[in-house]
Amino acid sequence: MKIKGIISYPITPFSLDERSIDFDVLGQTLELLIENGSDAIAPLGSTGESAYLSLDEWRQVADFTIKTVNSRVPVIVGISELTTLGAVGRARYAESIGADSVMVIPVSYWKLTEQEVYNYYKEISDAISIPIMVYNNPATSGIDMSPELMIKMFKEIENVTMVKESTGDIQRMHKLFELSEGELPFYNGSNPLAFEALCAGASGWCTAAPNILGNKPKQLFQAVFNGQLQIAQDIFYKQLPMLHFIVEGGIPKAIKAGLTRRGIKAGQPRKPLRGATGVEIQKLEDLMVQFGQ
Amino acid sequence: MKIKGIISYPITPFSLDERSIDFDVLGQTLELLIENGSDAIAPLGSTGESAYLSLDEWRQVADFTIKTVNSRVPVIVGISELTTLGAVGRARYAESIGADSVMVIPVSYWKLTEQEVYNYYKEISDAISIPIMVYNNPATSGIDMSPELMIKMFKEIENVTMVKESTGDIQRMHKLFELSEGELPFYNGSNPLAFEALCAGASGWCTAAPNILGNKPKQLFQAVFNGQLQIAQDIFYKQLPMLHFIVEGGIPKAIKAGLTRRGIKAGQPRKPLRGATGVEIQKLEDLMVQFGQ
Amino acid sequence: MKIKGIISYPITPFSLDERSIDFDVLGQTLELLIENGSDAIAPLGSTGESAYLSLDEWRQVADFTIKTVNSRVPVIVGISELTTLGAVGRARYAESIGADSVMVIPVSYWKLTEQEVYNYYKEISDAISIPIMVYNNPATSGIDMSPELMIKMFKEIENVTMVKESTGDIQRMHKLFELSEGELPFYNGSNPLAFEALCAGASGWCTAAPNILGNKPKQLFQAVFNGQLQIAQDIFYKQLPMLHFIVEGGIPKAIKAGLTRRGIKAGQPRKPLRGATGVEIQKLEDLMVQFGQ
Amino acid sequence: MKIKGIISYPITPFSLDERSIDFDVLGQTLELLIENGSDAIAPLGSTGESAYLSLDEWRQVADFTIKTVNSRVPVIVGISELTTLGAVGRARYAESIGADSVMVIPVSYWKLTEQEVYNYYKEISDAISIPIMVYNNPATSGIDMSPELMIKMFKEIENVTMVKESTGDIQRMHKLFELSEGELPFYNGSNPLAFEALCAGASGWCTAAPNILGNKPKQLFQAVFNGQLQIAQDIFYKQLPMLHFIVEGGIPKAIKAGLTRRGIKAGQPRKPLRGATGVEIQKLEDLMVQFGQ
Repeated sequence: MKIKGIISYPITPFSLDERSIDFDVLGQTLELLIENGSDAIAPLGSTGESAYLSLDEWRQVADFTIKTVNSRVPVIVGISELTTLGAVGRARYAESIGADSVMVIPVSYWKLTEQEVYNYYKEISDAISIPIMVYNNPATSGIDMSPELMIKMFKEIENVTMVKESTGDIQRMHKLFELSEGELPFYNGSNPLAFEALCAGASGWCTAAPNILGNKPKQLFQAVFNGQLQIAQDIFYKQLPMLHFIVEGGIPKAIKAGLTRRGIKAGQPRKPLRGATGVEIQKLEDLMVQFGQ
Repeated sequence: MKIKGIISYPITPFSLDERSIDFDVLGQTLELLIENGSDAIAPLGSTGESAYLSLDEWRQVADFTIKTVNSRVPVIVGISELTTLGAVGRARYAESIGADSVMVIPVSYWKLTEQEVYNYYKEISDAISIPIMVYNNPATSGIDMSPELMIKMFKEIENVTMVKESTGDIQRMHKLFELSEGELPFYNGSNPLAFEALCAGASGWCTAAPNILGNKPKQLFQAVFNGQLQIAQDIFYKQLPMLHFIVEGGIPKAIKAGLTRRGIKAGQPRKPLRGATGVEIQKLEDLMVQFGQ
Repeated sequence: MKIKGIISYPITPFSLDERSIDFDVLGQTLELLIENGSDAIAPLGSTGESAYLSLDEWRQVADFTIKTVNSRVPVIVGISELTTLGAVGRARYAESIGADSVMVIPVSYWKLTEQEVYNYYKEISDAISIPIMVYNNPATSGIDMSPELMIKMFKEIENVTMVKESTGDIQRMHKLFELSEGELPFYNGSNPLAFEALCAGASGWCTAAPNILGNKPKQLFQAVFNGQLQIAQDIFYKQLPMLHFIVEGGIPKAIKAGLTRRGIKAGQPRKPLRGATGVEIQKLEDLMVQFGQ
Repeated sequence: MKIKGIISYPITPFSLDERSIDFDVLGQTLELLIENGSDAIAPLGSTGESAYLSLDEWRQVADFTIKTVNSRVPVIVGISELTTLGAVGRARYAESIGADSVMVIPVSYWKLTEQEVYNYYKEISDAISIPIMVYNNPATSGIDMSPELMIKMFKEIENVTMVKESTGDIQRMHKLFELSEGELPFYNGSNPLAFEALCAGASGWCTAAPNILGNKPKQLFQAVFNGQLQIAQDIFYKQLPMLHFIVEGGIPKAIKAGLTRRGIKAGQPRKPLRGATGVEIQKLEDLMVQFGQ
């Protein structure tokens, strides 16, 4: 599996009382993401509030997404579990229902040593036979994996074949490129770094932005892929204010508000996360207008 | 409920295969903590690996602890839940089985705004009628509550009556004291700050140290309480190397190793957390000897 | 030379056009500091805007201060020089005019390695025969010296006999105490840490506060020295709001405003530093009234 | 004056005893930089150890550089002065001897407020009539100017016409571009960010690298300028290990070692800065060989 391009992240829409999942809406957003040029779909990521779901809910979302996408593009199922046993169980389940890959973030309460992180991925890898995308996002997980550690796991752990780097630090991209001599496919998960990460050699952009920005993220990828630097710069700066908006308030809140504005009943994030405030909705409206939508 | 003194944190001991809880050992450690002068017992805290337990395991530990302590000292049950609904459910359960108080830490995946944190505690408070200890420990939870926010919750949310501050920043203690004009009982959760926090007016010290250091933490509290500054300084510097050891490697690992050295079958933390390495066990041994045990 | 107690920092008062030094005012503040129980006087420190003076001005202030203090208490002359040659030159001058000690901070443009810092102090020590106080204040100097490095210099470099620690981190005090087994006299330079640093074993408090707070800092020292913990806590919390005010706006600005309020023509700091704004002066006034002056 | 491309930074070579400047060597390096495609020369910057020179030395280096360059390319003279008066004096001198521009960094002892920084630049601007490049490099100066402040000064202060951003944060570049709507010429001063900063719209790259890497930095600029993305990426990754080497050990040390290896008697940085160690020189040698020199 070699993914190049846009890996899109759907939300997990809840019912009004937060207690069940609205699969109709989930289906609508999946179609929207595929129509807008997604090269892969990654349910149950940070955008999908994966960590806030019960095991049962998590399974339902994984099932539904794989069935709905129906092999039109690869599906990468997100796992954010505190215990090794929990992560292994979910990874096995994802494989059993036909996931093309799992994306795993080592969330933490007590900080993990490098050896603990390594063993965590090793045990997951030993339990499955589909590729693992190592997901580094210390802002949410509390664990910051160094490029050196990720390269080591890429080289030594069988199913570790990709990295998603979300620190927003372009030097991490350089390090991944240098240390693997260009062999490790790495993906950028920091929206405001989208343009330069692709310049630096990222294989793709992991993003929830297509939920709001349609095919514009794909156009940025294409422009860089075609070596059209000036066009890429223009496209990037055009969408940057919206990318900042998405990131600043927390992605689930911003994306749910953006989808609602597009007429999709995306609802609210699960508590204690709150929906967008009136001020935030107005700002979104202004950005949408400015963006030409 | 006005607790002054040492609030002790038991571990949660697991069976060898990690899949069940060893209640015999839990019972032994509870007796050990009570014998060594604990003024309260707080199961299911950071030391107790609360965040790594299933709901069922968490309930069993709470049940067992409350029955075993049997009102000899107050029991404060720890809650570290990502969703508001989950936290409310556990708080209700704790009250239903006779907990004297709950200690609640707002763990996070997406960072929370101050309003989200406030609402989280408000909903928990509305669901119960026992006191809530607000627990600030950004190193594990990813959320740093300002003294201002904690004071506001103390003043406005009915059951919020205490704060546990674990940042290790003495200026936070000053702020809590100043902003509440000495009215808010605050407890220090940073072991290497134990002495000065008490000097600055903390009502107590929340610590797992009595598992290893016996009645020495209580002696420190007593010396400060009696205004014996020089004695307190001596006692503190004597135990400081061990306090550093406990904190540096992660408390569950260190405490479980220390209990094992005392002949109690405390086992290992749950994976991905690992047990103490040979080097760490040797260091512990050296410290124990140096400490006179 | 064993100093215990309050080491007071005078300002350097400038004429209205900033181009000359007002020695009348400097003399007044020196008397004020001695009257209020200073155990040593340290001109040309951070408070004295040492780094902003020409070599000639720096020499004049050193001369005047040593003559005026006239051995009533020890004088510790501050040096903050970028080059080794410059620091050596000033240290020699200070010794030649009768300074009891020099306090040296390794200011930086390019960050220094530990070896570079070590050599810097070594060359200064080799050039003089009076004691050196190593001054760690990374917020102004850009160099953060570890307790380990400072202990190493204390043990190996002949004239290094004292440390002033201004990071405000109580754990540094613990480390200095532990690593030197109580042998190294260390002084606290962070005003809001004054109380706890003394509890932790600091030999004294380096502060500009007596310029505004009169003999209150000395009273705090005495209370801790006498082991009167509750009295010390009361005195400390009483002066803490003023200590925060002094630190927050930059010490020279705050102290010059405070002296002006006391009727001493302290003037303004040297540009680009500005004097206190109207809002700051009002806040100072409120604090003075609240403090009972 | 609209500079696009490579702004090169010469060292300041000292005699063996550090006490005088070796103008022969300075002359050689100036020729080397011009031959390798520099679009401007900037003496007395961070590379030139500006902050470590006496006023007299600083003037000599400025004089010599302007005469030697002799209008072949623009000369931008660096100023890093703690006091406003000192900075104004140097700026006036630079203008008087024919500098095309001054580059000013607000070094600090006490941190400056935004208003203090603004006033500092305003007073300098009022005293001269040549362009000012605002230089942001908090790692050396201790002052971090926000993009908002720099844009404000660009708009309001007459001679502020350019910004050099050395934080290494690509988001600062984005902000400068967005806030000025592409009007403010900004230059990147962080070597490892060279490639992406140019992609993001930087007008040029401020660097000492041509001292060691010859015309390779210029080739990178040209490739990006021509929109040749893949070629630019290749050139960049080829020189990145050397760029890291230059930055990690402190630029004057690394560049002086590199020039020495090329047969130019560049000597050592001024103390307390030290020359390259044996290990560093070996690493440099390996990189040179790997780089094909």
